[in-house]
Amino acid sequence: MAKIAVVAGDGIGTEVVAQALKVLRVVLPDVETNDYDLGAARYNRTGEVLPDSVLEELRGHDAILLGAVGDPSVPPGVLERGLLLKLRFDFDQYVNLRPSRLWPGTTSPLAGVKPGEIDLVVVREGTEGLYVGAGGNLHPGTPAEVATEESLNTRHGVERVIRDAFARAQKRERGKVTLVHKTNVLTHAGGLWARAFNAVKAEFPDIETEYQHVDAAAMFLVTNPQRYDVVVTDNLFGDILTDIAAAVTGGIGLAASGSINPERAFPSMFEPVHGSAPDIAGKGVADPSAAVLSAALLLDHLGHPEAAARVSEAVGAEVAARTPGSALSTEAIGDRLAAAVA
Amino acid sequence: MAKIAVVAGDGIGTEVVAQALKVLRVVLPDVETNDYDLGAARYNRTGEVLPDSVLEELRGHDAILLGAVGDPSVPPGVLERGLLLKLRFDFDQYVNLRPSRLWPGTTSPLAGVKPGEIDLVVVREGTEGLYVGAGGNLHPGTPAEVATEESLNTRHGVERVIRDAFARAQKRERGKVTLVHKTNVLTHAGGLWARAFNAVKAEFPDIETEYQHVDAAAMFLVTNPQRYDVVVTDNLFGDILTDIAAAVTGGIGLAASGSINPERAFPSMFEPVHGSAPDIAGKGVADPSAAVLSAALLLDHLGHPEAAARVSEAVGAEVAARTPGSALSTEAIGDRLAAAVA
Ligand SMILES: CC(C)[C@H](C(=O)O)[C@@H](O)C(=O)O
Ligand SMILES: CC(C)[C@H](C(=O)O)[C@@H](O)C(=O)O
Repeated sequence: MAKIAVVAGDGIGTEVVAQALKVLRVVLPDVETNDYDLGAARYNRTGEVLPDSVLEELRGHDAILLGAVGDPSVPPGVLERGLLLKLRFDFDQYVNLRPSRLWPGTTSPLAGVKPGEIDLVVVREGTEGLYVGAGGNLHPGTPAEVATEESLNTRHGVERVIRDAFARAQKRERGKVTLVHKTNVLTHAGGLWARAFNAVKAEFPDIETEYQHVDAAAMFLVTNPQRYDVVVTDNLFGDILTDIAAAVTGGIGLAASGSINPERAFPSMFEPVHGSAPDIAGKGVADPSAAVLSAALLLDHLGHPEAAARVSEAVGAEVAARTPGSALSTEAIGDRLAAAVA
Repeated sequence: MAKIAVVAGDGIGTEVVAQALKVLRVVLPDVETNDYDLGAARYNRTGEVLPDSVLEELRGHDAILLGAVGDPSVPPGVLERGLLLKLRFDFDQYVNLRPSRLWPGTTSPLAGVKPGEIDLVVVREGTEGLYVGAGGNLHPGTPAEVATEESLNTRHGVERVIRDAFARAQKRERGKVTLVHKTNVLTHAGGLWARAFNAVKAEFPDIETEYQHVDAAAMFLVTNPQRYDVVVTDNLFGDILTDIAAAVTGGIGLAASGSINPERAFPSMFEPVHGSAPDIAGKGVADPSAAVLSAALLLDHLGHPEAAARVSEAVGAEVAARTPGSALSTEAIGDRLAAAVA
């Protein structure tokens, strides 16, 4: 029986997670869920971000379903470094998985791009690079200030995420992997990424490969996103590219993500890419689709690929069936999806 | 009399620079130009990238006009680090200026965005950040390999480029500056950028300001590029964002750039954003517009704002007058532009 920790979080996080759980319970009736109160609200109330005892409790779960955390009242970095990134690092969630599809019924901001034409997944490294937090400030706030940020990359960390990307490509129809980096400027890290990529590539002779600089990839995601199948890249580049991929497939309303430890040695975490959206929180108008699609990624990760497919197909069908101009409530969408997967 | 060093470079670089010079000579008849043979061709022939003696000669010029350097035969990093970045760093070209306009007659890949609606300029820091080349590799090529890249940021370097961005915003109609960084993750460098931004902001009370994380900015450049006026950001973020900005304004065919030392203590360098495009080189089909627009930035920098405006308006008019489906040759476009500015 799957044991899921639920971190609904702040703002619309609680609203969309409720719907994701509703759908999850239909396809996985015996799921055990435990709620954890984490995020801006708790921080503002208690000063706590992620107590060690909570971290230990989370560790005992098969997966974490997260809504969204954050509020303008919390200084930048507190929840990001102290909660989200801490979980990604402590639970060795090295595959940050972000699929982008242009679903039937959705409109891309790109002229002439039709539903079905974009279907890519970014495998973003999740435990290294510039996200490790190495660096510092000398003489802060003075004219002499110097600030550093250090990107740390290991062959171990890079190779395993590249291998995961190839394995995913092998299960997809096209079977193509694009490595994105900036090897012509970041020659140290770029060299390591290129070496690891070439080594893994030799293990997958049937997979088509290409390399692109991150600036070129950012451009092609706008001018020709159809060219991508699986994209593998580092932590920071992945952060940026996945937002472009979300933008060209109709925005973050449908963008799901998983922070995955493929070996299941630690719980993986699934969350919509969107934030807590304080401006629309509490109104019941948030679209729960990205949260539901994140639950589908969770199902897939826990070994229920058919249930996962049923859930994501239900989301696709619901989106396609929407009447332009008449928005459904968060709950109504959740009800429709729950009924569809039943 | 202006003294310009011309680095035509490789591939289509030579073709587009010839047209840019043709136009430049019309508006600045007494310009002195000196050609420098640098780039992939020279490197492959002699092994030289940028001899010290050439660097010293370049130093004696008011500006450098560059076409494009590069060829697949040259390993990544050689010309980038050894030539382009070396010039940016040695000549303290700390303002990397990249305007993006959706010109009349051009089509954005974005549905429903009309010419005139996008008019932004990215002021990218050019001498610091991850581009400094700090870092290394331990145990390269082995399973134990570790690679680092260090981003170095000084209050001096950050403040001066932010001040330049505000000064540019003050000369523009809207007068808005957006700072882009990733302060919630890169807290060390982000803190310095935010502190410098707030300090400079106080000197320009009439300028509207906003802050965005780089991932959000990458998304908004696709979903709402109209919101930007002047964007100021670090070296790497600027590299990525300017390619997105180019993509949504019709591609790199019209993207110009200047690597500028505003104090004119060193020569500034002007170049199209596109590369040497070996696939279409020698065919006379490359669009010289980006090179000509780069010459306009050069004119503006050297104190000829009217001539600069005449040149860029001529490009705009020529683009608007194009007949879809019937492409002009590189030279024919250059001739038209030269005639238009005469
Ligand atoms: C909130 C932040 C730490 C996070 C990131 O940068 O990874 C977010 O932007 C994301 O993409 O999940
Ligand atoms: C060629 C490369 C060094 C350069 C950069 O990264 O700055 C290019 O991408 C650019 O944007 O001018």
